[in-house]
Amino acid sequence: MKVFELPQILSALDEDAALAAVGAAFRGFATGQAQLTAVGHLGFTDPPGDCHVKGARMAGEEVFVVKLASSFYRNPERGLSSSTGFMAVMSARTGEVLAILHDQGRLTDTRTAMAGVLAARCILRPGSRTLGIVGAGIQARLQADLIGRRLGLDEVLIWARDPSRATALASDIGARAVDLPELCARADLIVTATPSTEPLIGVEMIRSGARIVAVGADSPGKRELDPRILALGHVVVDSPAQCLDHGETGWAVRAGLIEPASLIELGALLTTPRAFGDSDTVVADLTGVAIQDLAIATSVWRRLQAGDAR
Amino acid sequence: MKVFELPQILSALDEDAALAAVGAAFRGFATGQAQLTAVGHLGFTDPPGDCHVKGARMAGEEVFVVKLASSFYRNPERGLSSSTGFMAVMSARTGEVLAILHDQGRLTDTRTAMAGVLAARCILRPGSRTLGIVGAGIQARLQADLIGRRLGLDEVLIWARDPSRATALASDIGARAVDLPELCARADLIVTATPSTEPLIGVEMIRSGARIVAVGADSPGKRELDPRILALGHVVVDSPAQCLDHGETGWAVRAGLIEPASLIELGALLTTPRAFGDSDTVVADLTGVAIQDLAIATSVWRRLQAGDAR
Repeated sequence: MKVFELPQILSALDEDAALAAVGAAFRGFATGQAQLTAVGHLGFTDPPGDCHVKGARMAGEEVFVVKLASSFYRNPERGLSSSTGFMAVMSARTGEVLAILHDQGRLTDTRTAMAGVLAARCILRPGSRTLGIVGAGIQARLQADLIGRRLGLDEVLIWARDPSRATALASDIGARAVDLPELCARADLIVTATPSTEPLIGVEMIRSGARIVAVGADSPGKRELDPRILALGHVVVDSPAQCLDHGETGWAVRAGLIEPASLIELGALLTTPRAFGDSDTVVADLTGVAIQDLAIATSVWRRLQAGDAR
Repeated sequence: MKVFELPQILSALDEDAALAAVGAAFRGFATGQAQLTAVGHLGFTDPPGDCHVKGARMAGEEVFVVKLASSFYRNPERGLSSSTGFMAVMSARTGEVLAILHDQGRLTDTRTAMAGVLAARCILRPGSRTLGIVGAGIQARLQADLIGRRLGLDEVLIWARDPSRATALASDIGARAVDLPELCARADLIVTATPSTEPLIGVEMIRSGARIVAVGADSPGKRELDPRILALGHVVVDSPAQCLDHGETGWAVRAGLIEPASLIELGALLTTPRAFGDSDTVVADLTGVAIQDLAIATSVWRRLQAGDAR
């Protein structure tokens, strides 16, 4: 069992390789090649925190991965990151623990942003150039960077509930802080990445042919979109089961606005691209699936094994 | 994050301290102080294996524990132990990973045997001296050793489906291999520790006032006892929910032989001992609870922190 700390992990994280691995994992997941554990959860109140444990394997893969990820929300008051944890890489032949990647949540952040890139690439209209980011946290920053660079969206607009955080992020990354209606009106692609529990984007803000990647709703109670937006066109889901349970999709289905049968699986869309009409609204609902952890951890571990650090 | 390998872990494992910790954990569990994760599972077929992930916390404790435990059944063919895995110790204040105890399943084996000691101590008749062990695997050996020593049962009888394994274990530990009816007739305490999926001990083998600790049935489909045995007297359970789901208790309840309301929680019995009548049959159904992992890992971790290794 080898243990790798964050600097080693980051130096072995190859963006191209990891992005390809996450895409391949979604394709395998959509064709039933993946097996996921039930998600384990422990909740804490004093101080408030959550610990989630989840694992995944892919048929035929030589390793499998279990991730432990905690968020303790007052850690920043102590100068600590709120996210902590590790991914464990095990042999699928012997069960032996091959490696502990003590990534402190960074691989999760990255694989989440990579799902954003993959979804955005599937739904983006040709000629798009403006990216609208809703949120000013770590995930907003990562999505802005990764989607901006990988998909060539060279104008980035930011909105966040706290204007000072939006301005700070915008200034950091060469973007522009705007109000939310302007962002929705101008962005070719909107990425929502907040912990909101109320809709932020109303159906009236949405222009014809809007493309939205919704990343924030990753657990019950969270939501960022007016559910009527999902009824305007097509809905792409990273995991039908999870999106129905706690994604934006669940809110729209429970409100009787869309049918589960209409959902398009991201993995299927990656395998068989589909041309959406220019005036079609398309929402990609991303709740985060353990196969993403499997993919990124395996990608990093292979390079660590091979000594391919940057 | 510190990583401890098996030799360090074993040298920091203090039997008295760990046994006390496991007992305290059962008492806390019975009074609702514990929180458990859903159990995560991944199954493998080629080669066959299982990986289980589970976690627990106890209110007010400064750490919590998540365990990953794999069993790959053909590992011995490669000269490897079938059991592998680790326990991770996290701060309940910040979520930070404090330690990885790479115990390769040994702490699980030990905490399981310790539950056997605790249950046996609660149900043993005064003056008992003969221990009957059903099974010849690691758990049979540990139960024989630990219960024999801790409860002063100086005569040990062994039966196993494979007589050569029973003889080998008996010879190793100064016990005597016997047939199963003789074991049941002579033992003051019977401990069943096999992976059987069919009843091994029939109700007709059981003498008046039998005391049985059933350890084998730890997942759906497993059983070692004729369910009518549970209807003869009292049933003690480590976890009502788990025992109803996949313990000996579940078989007896589903057959309409006993009522869930009649179950006695081990943690409650440890808090408030109860004198069973000499002719009462008492079965302790132990399925294994994540609070045992929490207790033993915490006990070992504290001693590792303090530098109290043997």
